[in-house]
Amino acid sequence: MTTPLSEFDTALTLTPVDSTSARSGGGPAFTAQLSDRWAIGGAVNGGLLLALLGKAASRAGEHSASGSVHPDPLAISAHYLSASVGGPARIETEIVRSGRTTSVVSVHLEQKQDDKPTGRVRALVTTGDLDALDGPEFITPPCPELPPPDQCYATTDTPQGFKSPGPFTERLDVRLTPGSVAWALGDFSAPGTFNAWIRFPDGREPDPISLLQIVDALPPVTYTWGHFGWAPTVELTAYVRARPAPGWLSMQISTSTYARGFLEEDVQVWDSTGELVAQARQLASAPRFTQKT
Amino acid sequence: MTTPLSEFDTALTLTPVDSTSARSGGGPAFTAQLSDRWAIGGAVNGGLLLALLGKAASRAGEHSASGSVHPDPLAISAHYLSASVGGPARIETEIVRSGRTTSVVSVHLEQKQDDKPTGRVRALVTTGDLDALDGPEFITPPCPELPPPDQCYATTDTPQGFKSPGPFTERLDVRLTPGSVAWALGDFSAPGTFNAWIRFPDGREPDPISLLQIVDALPPVTYTWGHFGWAPTVELTAYVRARPAPGWLSMQISTSTYARGFLEEDVQVWDSTGELVAQARQLASAPRFTQKT
Repeated sequence: MTTPLSEFDTALTLTPVDSTSARSGGGPAFTAQLSDRWAIGGAVNGGLLLALLGKAASRAGEHSASGSVHPDPLAISAHYLSASVGGPARIETEIVRSGRTTSVVSVHLEQKQDDKPTGRVRALVTTGDLDALDGPEFITPPCPELPPPDQCYATTDTPQGFKSPGPFTERLDVRLTPGSVAWALGDFSAPGTFNAWIRFPDGREPDPISLLQIVDALPPVTYTWGHFGWAPTVELTAYVRARPAPGWLSMQISTSTYARGFLEEDVQVWDSTGELVAQARQLASAPRFTQKT
Repeated sequence: MTTPLSEFDTALTLTPVDSTSARSGGGPAFTAQLSDRWAIGGAVNGGLLLALLGKAASRAGEHSASGSVHPDPLAISAHYLSASVGGPARIETEIVRSGRTTSVVSVHLEQKQDDKPTGRVRALVTTGDLDALDGPEFITPPCPELPPPDQCYATTDTPQGFKSPGPFTERLDVRLTPGSVAWALGDFSAPGTFNAWIRFPDGREPDPISLLQIVDALPPVTYTWGHFGWAPTVELTAYVRARPAPGWLSMQISTSTYARGFLEEDVQVWDSTGELVAQARQLASAPRFTQKT
């Protein structure tokens, strides 16, 4: 019996395009099918796109004569160009560097809009081999002690008076700690931080690629000020620091600087053994409208 | 009387190359002259390269029919490909998106090595207009209170037994607080953070482009563990959050995760009015050798 593909892996299906790019250093191109099931606020979630680009980068060596590529994303930086929508997408890769221990791949995702190819996301990815990493732990951030998931609040439990922002909220099982949902009760006195448990609801275990989805899966931390609505990502960089163990992941999101129409969001993700497995930071535009409860 | 060009602006001189790239979306190309005066550990400092790429991105619209580009780097993500050396360099730009309030430019710096064009740094830059940013300050990190610069330690005052890592240390006036140089006295008991004042020694005032230099100008924070030597940058992302006021900048560098052969460095830069003007994070390889005092 073969295990059916998880919902997440289905969304990450890449189909190689026959003719590889003629550009110098060009890597293979892929097509993908973006699904509205991953849409939030009318656009496909940026974390799903990040995972898709990370996967395309790690596969860029397979269909290319221009160099081999290491298997795991170590660092990925994505600049978001326009909102992605459900429908076909094309992903072009370029192998920028093919080295001994790391490779660098440029990845571009575009969709047809009014029949014109329109860039959605451009990313640079440094790939390496997480299993080959070596060296002691001199400092790592302690995993915050969170109340167990069943004492936390699922993001699908939309508070009264809130409209669900989109089907994406059902793609992940997110449990915000009681302290992280004070805003839903009109308490905006200690803003700036979310703590949560997170996993795929169908049991799909975490791996390096899925961490790229995880780092952009929570509501904007501006909710803690009572500033609701979409906070469009300008740039997002994620570092995968270790291969995650199976089970729940826990994460913390915070901002230090929410000013002049932009905020940065800092993300830390720990696996079920308490190991720091991913760090991410994004620059986002402040939400365009404010809805107070 | 014209003011002579500052040392930093001289290093950032870009000469447009006549023939613009034929690629679709291609922007102009420039040549630059990298100087060994900015070398540290045998390679040109990564902050100088970041500033050079940021400047090239902001000028990419000037010589291009493919779109206009906004003047200030808001977010720049650079992946470092190989060590840059003193000598000529070529910078190619590609306008990835030309929007109403922001633009995205891809920038590639290469040098001839054994007569072959060799990539040094590839970056993505989202540019915008800092003067057009608007919105209240909901949260910003307080500027740490540091002892005055004359009670701090210049990085040019190499501790006894240390070899100067290169002429780059003289390009900036860096003053580490007494607490940040405990390692020089063999005290490794509270590692992980540097606090410093920083400015150009010739009086060149800070601006958005120079902040890109500033965020990668201090020794690796691994020094605080007694781990000396070069910590090669894998990826560096900087956000410019506001136009800096004239005068000293102050900065804090810390790491939360130094493990398995890599560390991230988190940088915050405040201007002389105490405003947070830049944030940056880099993923670096742990130093390859350790020299204890």
